Amino acid sequence: MHRTAVKKVVLEGVLDANDALAQANRQKFDEAGTYVVNMMSSPGAGKTSLLEHTLERMRRKLRLGVLEGDVQTTLDADRLARFHVPLVQVNTDPGFGGECHLDANMVRSGLPELPLSEIDALIIENVGNLVCPAEFKVGEDARVMVYAITEGEDKPLKYPLMFRSADLVLVNKMDLLEHLDFDLEQFLGYLDAVNPGVGRIFTSARTGRGLDEWCSWLENRAARARAVQ
Amino acid sequence: MHRTAVKKVVLEGVLDANDALAQANRQKFDEAGTYVVNMMSSPGAGKTSLLEHTLERMRRKLRLGVLEGDVQTTLDADRLARFHVPLVQVNTDPGFGGECHLDANMVRSGLPELPLSEIDALIIENVGNLVCPAEFKVGEDARVMVYAITEGEDKPLKYPLMFRSADLVLVNKMDLLEHLDFDLEQFLGYLDAVNPGVGRIFTSARTGRGLDEWCSWLENRAARARAVQ
Repeated sequence: MHRTAVKKVVLEGVLDANDALAQANRQKFDEAGTYVVNMMSSPGAGKTSLLEHTLERMRRKLRLGVLEGDVQTTLDADRLARFHVPLVQVNTDPGFGGECHLDANMVRSGLPELPLSEIDALIIENVGNLVCPAEFKVGEDARVMVYAITEGEDKPLKYPLMFRSADLVLVNKMDLLEHLDFDLEQFLGYLDAVNPGVGRIFTSARTGRGLDEWCSWLENRAARARAVQ
Repeated sequence: MHRTAVKKVVLEGVLDANDALAQANRQKFDEAGTYVVNMMSSPGAGKTSLLEHTLERMRRKLRLGVLEGDVQTTLDADRLARFHVPLVQVNTDPGFGGECHLDANMVRSGLPELPLSEIDALIIENVGNLVCPAEFKVGEDARVMVYAITEGEDKPLKYPLMFRSADLVLVNKMDLLEHLDFDLEQFLGYLDAVNPGVGRIFTSARTGRGLDEWCSWLENRAARARAVQ
């Protein structure tokens, strides 16, 4: 019991420190008029593929920037480099706790590389993980979760914090629906059980389904953030 | 820099304490002659479905037991209850660090519920996560990783610790290969780059592919553990 109590205090301290840094990040974003999306998912749910399509479609309409979080490698950043948008890679490998998430300090460490005042919308691609990324605010305006239907129906119940904290869920890999034993209605029921009425867009990077709707969502949100600035 | 140094010391302390508890678990398993598999994957890669098939096929040949790790819910344990094997659910929700993995202490907390001396092989189903579970030994004999080909080719490079620490990789959801843009050769090349020659079995819970091979692997390993006891 004692051990658990000590751990809890350590954790609370870590999260308090994180919140303070997240607020500092947020202030920088607000000053620059940059709308910030924290994009989260399991490994391999399709975040980077969706981002490629987003950059392809939107880079002439919206000044986009990307902060890539990965445990190791610059593979995702390399995939996005061809779009010539401001892009920074943060590797979480030297961090704390298994480096399974971005925290506010890691995001802060990447910001000097980004010309925020020239970025309308910054997309932060978090480490692939359904648990810890949800616990760490990084100063974002919105949390967008990418959920691949290949992951099964039950995950909203098993990883409720992540689903509960999402502002929008991109239900992805919809092109595979006919090849899976996936009960979409059941999944949506579970999703509504933990986050009633949360926005959802059915997407497929392969077929392009839902990408217009997602890009409009992003454009509208960024425009609104600029307007209130 | 100071903050990072403090965090590093805390982490090392946590991992040292974990190793000591893992060794204590290991001693219990050895005394009981129980072969222990730590099964790890991303969320939704198919661990529970593979386990259902394993229990269905093997429960008359091998005395199996299961320790289920989940952040919340007993959904997985409920799915496996119909096989009437010794089964315990550990919820990681009150734990430390986002509860994104099983550690040796959580496993230890579940052991009193399991009649180890009547279990030839215990399968520990870890929390779905490609990062932290790999950092925490729980006293297992082998680590079996389930990798769904829907997760893309690049994950061995992005999550190297997990792939490096695996003793066997079940390359799962092979029934979907024809519907994906997945380059199997490239994935296997990346796998060999981080864990040269690691055992691999191509599986599908849907078609039954590879399940005989996987069950034989488990049976042989458990028999060998008994023989040296």
